[in-house]
Parts: sequence; C-alpha cells; structure tokens
Amino acid sequence: MRRVLGIDPGSRVTGYGILDWAGKPVLVTAGCIRTETNDFPERLRRIFEGISRIVEEFKPEEMAVEQVFMHKNADSALKLGHARGAAICAGVSRGLAVHEYAARQVKLALVGKGGADKVQVQHMVCFLLGHETPLAMDASDALGVALCHLHHQQTLNRMNRMAQR
Amino acid sequence: MRRVLGIDPGSRVTGYGILDWAGKPVLVTAGCIRTETNDFPERLRRIFEGISRIVEEFKPEEMAVEQVFMHKNADSALKLGHARGAAICAGVSRGLAVHEYAARQVKLALVGKGGADKVQVQHMVCFLLGHETPLAMDASDALGVALCHLHHQQTLNRMNRMAQR
Repeated sequence: MRRVLGIDPGSRVTGYGILDWAGKPVLVTAGCIRTETNDFPERLRRIFEGISRIVEEFKPEEMAVEQVFMHKNADSALKLGHARGAAICAGVSRGLAVHEYAARQVKLALVGKGGADKVQVQHMVCFLLGHETPLAMDASDALGVALCHLHHQQTLNRMNRMAQR
Repeated sequence: MRRVLGIDPGSRVTGYGILDWAGKPVLVTAGCIRTETNDFPERLRRIFEGISRIVEEFKPEEMAVEQVFMHKNADSALKLGHARGAAICAGVSRGLAVHEYAARQVKLALVGKGGADKVQVQHMVCFLLGHETPLAMDASDALGVALCHLHHQQTLNRMNRMAQR
C-alpha cells in the first residue's frame, strides 16, 4: 500500500489531501490551511508548519503537487512560488519524494480531457473516492493531483509487468 | 549584541552572511549554497537544509532578505519565489524574525544612492566590514542586506532614545 499527499499550494489557502492505494484510491483526510495575514513570512511559516504537521501525523511516503508553467502575472507568480516552495520544503525536509504533474495531466487522468474545468475535476474526485458530499475546491484540487499520481504509478507498474513477461 | 543572518536567495546559488553588532558590524561568516541539479524539489531541499544548518550552528536572532517587487519575467519570478520561500521557511520555522528590505533601501544604506550598481555595493560591504579581499558577489549581496538591517535598527534605536528625552 502506498500513501500519497496531494498539495494545492496558494499564498492565502493551501489545499491538501491524503490517499491510500488499496487496489483503489481510499480517502484518508483532506482540508485546507488558511494563511490570512498581512505578514508574508508568517504566511509561509503557517504553510510550512501546517504541511509538516500533516506529514508527521499521517506519514505519507510521497507528495504530488501541480506543476506551474508560465504564469501571466509576474507578481502573482512570485507569491505562488513562495507558497509552493514552503509546501515542497515541508515534504522534502522529511524525506518525501516530490512528484509534479501539469494541470493538463491531472485533468486528463481524471476527466479524460486536458481542457476540463474545475467543477468537472471536483465532481470526478468525489465520484472516484465515493464521497457523496462535495469537497471544498482547494481540498479537491489537492486530491486531484494525488489521484493523478496514483493513476500514473499504476500505469508505470502495469508497463513494468508487461515488459518483464 | 544582536546577530543577523542576511540571505540572497536564488534557485541556483543562495548567498548568506552573518553579522554581529558590537558598536560596529562584525563579520561572523559568509558563503554560498550551490544547488546545481535538474531536480527542482531537491534544489529547494538543499536551500532549506543549508540555511537550517547555518541557523543551528551560528544561532542568529534575525533574518534579513531583499524584497522583490515586480519581476519582468513570470517564469524566473516563479523560480525565485520558490527559492525565497525555502530560505525564509528555514528561518521562520526556527523562530527567526524575518525583515525584508527593497534593493533600493539596501543601496541607499550602503552607498548613499538608491541606484548604485552591484560592484559599488560589493566594495562598500568589504569597506564597512574591514575585509581586504573581495567577497563573492552572492555572499556580498547577503551581507549587504544584513548591514542594511543593522543600520535600520540603529536608526530606530536612536529615534526611540530621542523620543524618550
């Protein structure tokens, strides 16, 4: 069984979600870290310590995070970079392997279309996890990238098995 | 006496420098953390752990880092954001107060001109610290922001004393 922590970092809200793979994905926990304060280093501390606590409590082995390519706005790219840096540090400093997936890969893995919208992703995350009530958007995005990672790993495993035959 | 850690974060090289204030600034240590690898999360881990080790060894009370405003290129802003996030997290997670100064403030404090170039800053850092051989550019930039912080604190202290008379 593998346990993966999906992260959707943001300078105001960072979503997280943990999944186990037990033949199918099983939801362990999900939620958001809110970092509303005008003190920017304090926001980074809250992200870093929030993710660190989750890693210590639930002991995932891997971290999956959405890859960011070009950003339209340099100022928001800089803020997002800080938040991602804080979240990734909380993982790598505790020995987690970090895997990055492009938004298009996540949508393709979940909805079958690289151009799917956020609501379709949210719907498929709930459906795949058998979760009846809708999950908050940030938690759902974090679970989406965790699901994408599990699917990706399953595909790699199948390909390895086929190559060994 | 106060001990301050200045940081000049970058995704490939992160400069650092520690100063004590003992009536004048005294150089404790300075250097660079090189993070050359294609694995981006690993680069962040090296920045985070490198700064963490320096904090544990030299026990500074405060961190000073250059503030970044608008960046021309969103892609490099995103990378710089990650590196700054990792360096700041190493400080805040160990209880350091983080102070940010605009590049203009640093140049004004050291050279007396907000538009001074990097070589003038490097020269003044060596002069103010009585360091005869030139320091590496990244270490010198980190010491520059630490010096700016010490000057800023001295000015605040003087103003407080005057207000109390």
